[in-house]
Amino acid sequence: MAITGTSEKSTGRIRLGMVGGGQGAFIGAVHRLAARMDDHYEFVAGALSADADRAIASGRELGLSDERIYSDYKVMAKSEAKRPDGIEAVSIVTPNHMHFPVAKAFIEAGIHVICDKPLSLSLKEAKQLEALLQKNPKVVFALTHNYSGYPMIRHAQAMVARGDLGEIRIVQGEYPQDWLTEALEKTGQKQAGWRTDPKRSGAGGSVGDIGTHTYQLATFVSGLKLEELACELTSFVKGRVLDDNVQTMLRFKGGARGAIWASQVAVGHENGLKLRVYGTKGGIEWLQADPNYLWFTPYGQEKRLITRAGAGAGAEAARMTRVPSGHPEGYLEGFANIYSEVAQAIKAARSGKKAPKGVQFPGIADGVAGMAFIEACVKSSKANAKWVKV
Amino acid sequence: MAITGTSEKSTGRIRLGMVGGGQGAFIGAVHRLAARMDDHYEFVAGALSADADRAIASGRELGLSDERIYSDYKVMAKSEAKRPDGIEAVSIVTPNHMHFPVAKAFIEAGIHVICDKPLSLSLKEAKQLEALLQKNPKVVFALTHNYSGYPMIRHAQAMVARGDLGEIRIVQGEYPQDWLTEALEKTGQKQAGWRTDPKRSGAGGSVGDIGTHTYQLATFVSGLKLEELACELTSFVKGRVLDDNVQTMLRFKGGARGAIWASQVAVGHENGLKLRVYGTKGGIEWLQADPNYLWFTPYGQEKRLITRAGAGAGAEAARMTRVPSGHPEGYLEGFANIYSEVAQAIKAARSGKKAPKGVQFPGIADGVAGMAFIEACVKSSKANAKWVKV
Amino acid sequence: MAITGTSEKSTGRIRLGMVGGGQGAFIGAVHRLAARMDDHYEFVAGALSADADRAIASGRELGLSDERIYSDYKVMAKSEAKRPDGIEAVSIVTPNHMHFPVAKAFIEAGIHVICDKPLSLSLKEAKQLEALLQKNPKVVFALTHNYSGYPMIRHAQAMVARGDLGEIRIVQGEYPQDWLTEALEKTGQKQAGWRTDPKRSGAGGSVGDIGTHTYQLATFVSGLKLEELACELTSFVKGRVLDDNVQTMLRFKGGARGAIWASQVAVGHENGLKLRVYGTKGGIEWLQADPNYLWFTPYGQEKRLITRAGAGAGAEAARMTRVPSGHPEGYLEGFANIYSEVAQAIKAARSGKKAPKGVQFPGIADGVAGMAFIEACVKSSKANAKWVKV
Amino acid sequence: MAITGTSEKSTGRIRLGMVGGGQGAFIGAVHRLAARMDDHYEFVAGALSADADRAIASGRELGLSDERIYSDYKVMAKSEAKRPDGIEAVSIVTPNHMHFPVAKAFIEAGIHVICDKPLSLSLKEAKQLEALLQKNPKVVFALTHNYSGYPMIRHAQAMVARGDLGEIRIVQGEYPQDWLTEALEKTGQKQAGWRTDPKRSGAGGSVGDIGTHTYQLATFVSGLKLEELACELTSFVKGRVLDDNVQTMLRFKGGARGAIWASQVAVGHENGLKLRVYGTKGGIEWLQADPNYLWFTPYGQEKRLITRAGAGAGAEAARMTRVPSGHPEGYLEGFANIYSEVAQAIKAARSGKKAPKGVQFPGIADGVAGMAFIEACVKSSKANAKWVKV
Repeated sequence: MAITGTSEKSTGRIRLGMVGGGQGAFIGAVHRLAARMDDHYEFVAGALSADADRAIASGRELGLSDERIYSDYKVMAKSEAKRPDGIEAVSIVTPNHMHFPVAKAFIEAGIHVICDKPLSLSLKEAKQLEALLQKNPKVVFALTHNYSGYPMIRHAQAMVARGDLGEIRIVQGEYPQDWLTEALEKTGQKQAGWRTDPKRSGAGGSVGDIGTHTYQLATFVSGLKLEELACELTSFVKGRVLDDNVQTMLRFKGGARGAIWASQVAVGHENGLKLRVYGTKGGIEWLQADPNYLWFTPYGQEKRLITRAGAGAGAEAARMTRVPSGHPEGYLEGFANIYSEVAQAIKAARSGKKAPKGVQFPGIADGVAGMAFIEACVKSSKANAKWVKV
Repeated sequence: MAITGTSEKSTGRIRLGMVGGGQGAFIGAVHRLAARMDDHYEFVAGALSADADRAIASGRELGLSDERIYSDYKVMAKSEAKRPDGIEAVSIVTPNHMHFPVAKAFIEAGIHVICDKPLSLSLKEAKQLEALLQKNPKVVFALTHNYSGYPMIRHAQAMVARGDLGEIRIVQGEYPQDWLTEALEKTGQKQAGWRTDPKRSGAGGSVGDIGTHTYQLATFVSGLKLEELACELTSFVKGRVLDDNVQTMLRFKGGARGAIWASQVAVGHENGLKLRVYGTKGGIEWLQADPNYLWFTPYGQEKRLITRAGAGAGAEAARMTRVPSGHPEGYLEGFANIYSEVAQAIKAARSGKKAPKGVQFPGIADGVAGMAFIEACVKSSKANAKWVKV
Repeated sequence: MAITGTSEKSTGRIRLGMVGGGQGAFIGAVHRLAARMDDHYEFVAGALSADADRAIASGRELGLSDERIYSDYKVMAKSEAKRPDGIEAVSIVTPNHMHFPVAKAFIEAGIHVICDKPLSLSLKEAKQLEALLQKNPKVVFALTHNYSGYPMIRHAQAMVARGDLGEIRIVQGEYPQDWLTEALEKTGQKQAGWRTDPKRSGAGGSVGDIGTHTYQLATFVSGLKLEELACELTSFVKGRVLDDNVQTMLRFKGGARGAIWASQVAVGHENGLKLRVYGTKGGIEWLQADPNYLWFTPYGQEKRLITRAGAGAGAEAARMTRVPSGHPEGYLEGFANIYSEVAQAIKAARSGKKAPKGVQFPGIADGVAGMAFIEACVKSSKANAKWVKV
Repeated sequence: MAITGTSEKSTGRIRLGMVGGGQGAFIGAVHRLAARMDDHYEFVAGALSADADRAIASGRELGLSDERIYSDYKVMAKSEAKRPDGIEAVSIVTPNHMHFPVAKAFIEAGIHVICDKPLSLSLKEAKQLEALLQKNPKVVFALTHNYSGYPMIRHAQAMVARGDLGEIRIVQGEYPQDWLTEALEKTGQKQAGWRTDPKRSGAGGSVGDIGTHTYQLATFVSGLKLEELACELTSFVKGRVLDDNVQTMLRFKGGARGAIWASQVAVGHENGLKLRVYGTKGGIEWLQADPNYLWFTPYGQEKRLITRAGAGAGAEAARMTRVPSGHPEGYLEGFANIYSEVAQAIKAARSGKKAPKGVQFPGIADGVAGMAFIEACVKSSKANAKWVKV
């Protein structure tokens, strides 16, 4: 009956900036709220839009002082790096094609980066960022694969790691949605517009947007490394260039098998991300829409319902939880957990330390792996779904 | 609030025999119960075991008169064909390898056949039976793909047929079980023994046992024809020859896509057969463990729960139902529906007529399709999951 | 993977008759199907209607020989008692007001009785039957409170009995339906007609029809005895004489507390019978619409899902089950379990023995308790819901 | 796909103080997080504990400047009222017995009050506050019956108001928990300590803590006024003075009936608040643990699942939502909705205006009604559950 998790710390807040996320955007507001939830950050600067008027209007509405409202992210990176009270970290919440140049600019300015996923437009760009970060080891880099911030996902990961499931045999991931069942991108809807546009989204449609989330979560929980995949991408909606449905068979190192199905045209699903992992000794199931529940069956016993903050949820989940069991936490809390984990890394970095033990957040390695996944899927699909090494 | 479905008819019962299903067997008892439920049959003869003593003990326990207890199905077929009160139909409930020879014997004797699935050990055998039936057009042949007897599956089929889902795009089938997670076949367990033995089960393990059920159900409901598939069969349990896990990607004629996952090592699943079908206008979901519910989402509207005998369940479901909505029906009722449908065909055949309109049951075409599916899966899997035409 | 429960026995079938249940009736067909399911009975005689023509048409359709089709139950009782092949048992499936006279006639004729519930129109009648049975100790008397035949209810009862829940504190029962939301009885619907008519149903409407089921189940599982109750009966539909909604607070002997809510006007419920029992050490929950599941929480541990025939379901459930876990059983199987339990008692009675250990079915005591419950509810409700001893 | 609800406004933040909620407390942190979520408030002053050392440590940790850390709420009220930058509103998050004096002090100082529930220790105190607020009409007063902030509860309220359910007949509320199954208060657990202590909690135990929440929600959604109730309070745990289980039958003005069951000893429930409302035309069901779902059955049609931000959720829900459908929101978001609603009222009050149309939050009337409910329950229970007017 207490907030046991990511305790609020109003003192020593991290000065945060943002690129993207102006009026009308979606994910920028989510990032700001996630940053605010546990009070580890204060939002002080932004290039919220490349359009100067919109940047100003958006920044003022959010309480930024005029001198720290930018319309050019390069100017922002340089100016903030010079200020004694300059931002320590930046959130990048632009469409995909801008992730790379913006991240590059801030890393080079020595500013920590919290970047929306997928990392970039191509695996090549991803590897460039990886190299750049190796040259700038003091910069903390996080990628908001937010689903890995859910408490029960942390618990699932811990269960697998300590052997509750035995040797993992099967990993089934799926992420069905239905919001692109019709040609929404032709109606002027902004989200649909850029997410179906290869120039702004990259070579993957549903595979980049939600397939990568599923893949990241599957490997995060199972601890497995993907070896090869066979994939078929389909565009069901007439005139749509990028895939809106992806079927993938997976072979993991060590012999485990699996599949990922992601779709934007599966009528009846909102954000139906589901992960199931089966081993020699047990199986688990988790559904993002009901994230406070983790189903666990030890082989030969009854199925159990492990609840967030309830009996059976261990320390790894407790770190990530705020309210008592039976009081649901949701998407924003999971997202905020990523921000709070990153905050611990950034605060440690202030004094040249590593993040405390147990702190986890998706980073550059996840970003590179995600881009490799997208490229392998596209390559396999073009070759009639032949197996492609990742 | 009335039994509106397959009304009981104690008069004019069909004389039924059985091959297999003696003491210790499972599916034989299910067939007898299914036959008995709506009182369309009377059970009068059997070769319940190839072992004479066991055949006699089993037959007597079930009330057969000694003269109609056989240990040799060939003798039974001939003897019963000669008797004026001989059986009109036989249920074949042996392990898979006996389906073909037994079915052949009874078809040749002019006796209607209700055969457990899969049809045979090979596609070749399946086609021989198909040819034999073409020569014996008066013989009614049914294959107990029992899941197609569930009322809500009938309703789902009708919904697709009348366009409620629009053009079908995606079909996702799965059938996870966990009973073969360990090497149960090495413990002497009878079911596990023959189901993991290629001599008695054929070339498919899980793909033959439960993959075919899933495939039959998927095509039954969606009305689609499979064009090609890419499949990976895996045997996770050490020393097991046949597959215990199957991943399949599907391409249907007309462009729809799909996947089937079946497993006997997915811990936490008992008989988790699930079917999901998505079209341009709607999506449905059905789960065998909760068969009285069909979830339907018309695109852009709220999800609806259609219940057996409830509001929204139409005539096709009503034909297959016995008790009011909210009183669950189950596996045996679904199985009995197949028997009651077949009974209508057999009764019509008595006077040389066709089955009444609306009567449906899986037959030789389903059997041939199922064997073609198994063979394609095995072939694809051996060729590194390349696409194989069905 | 075997039919482990109420094994079929075609030999030594019990000769069964029926009063009520002619064409257009509902529960009669359910009784016949339940009797047939495990093959313990053969249906040979009936007074299916008091109307001779309808009695004949109904009887012939069900395969009765003309000489054993009656329109007068008194004639039937006497005639059958005299025949060497006369019925051994009779099922009474008339509207409530006929239960008493018909049961009386058959008990006096020395014929076993399986009677639909509630037992009678009044507690006085119930006690007369009780006295009559004491004078006829060889007669087996069963009351079809069918819900107590569900396997998971048997398991729940066993759990409580062996102390898995500790000392019982709270029992919450509910049975919401919605079929009488409007004045269906004014449309000529037969079921609605007699169930809302005090002459044929007695003093209780919903309390008699579904309240008694809930009460019987609550005491069956919890093992508690009711001490007193406070009840409010309401008739929401204009012009309806009997109650269509019942709220009851319960005080059990020993200090446990509880409540029963039953309703025929709760829109959205089909047959939503639910039972929850809480003790010092654990809690359970069971829902009739999903009867293969029993939820159990040991205090301080995760909730568990115990499934019929699955891990954790013990011998008491196994006796009542036919198919493997994951293959759902339903209402008819639960009803058939009562018939099969009674069959064991009747077969034992043939040789003057008692029913084998473990055999359980609701009998005259449940019938008397049910009538006492109805009368207490009516009395309390008329006295502004004051507490009434039961 | 956009944050459509309570849009963040970093400009013009409301200066907020807090009484109670120091280190080790639970609900204080929830209030602060709720205040922070949409950025309408800045937290600047507090009497977080009556113990000076603890007050200072708590305040510093939360970033308060030393001069605005108080240990005496009276001093705080006066000091802050005098400061030009003094707080505009205070959150009261003490145990129940302090709600009244603290609220009184701040109202008299002209500071807006956001008070945790229940309002006070007695109905008498509640009415005093009501009178005081009538004398101070500029003071905004809110009571955090947070469940009424859930989006689907707003939608449910709107459905009832516009007649989707027809005339309301039945309201069933329940709030089972199990955290007080054993004598946790004897272990030194702080929450259990004060919640089972009549001096700090008042005359109601579970009825005050969770019964009032259920009652408030039931009337909020149904729009009904309670006329009278019959209640039985029970203390199951040995030595516990206050009730840990409450059964209540309800009579509403206009003829509707209902029941509330709340329990702290119902093993298997965490925070199982559930509300069901039935009318002549439809029924709804909502469960706090799964708050993004509202089940709705129009009479004679299929049950529908209305989801937060999904199809069918109207403007009233949209105002209260932040993320797209399928991404769950939870307890904290619901709580924050109350804070954001109150913020609108406070901001309007700055310029002497009323809160904008549509803004709703529980206030003094809910507080008085809640105390009247508790007192009626206690009175009824002491009089053997006789009906008591509210």
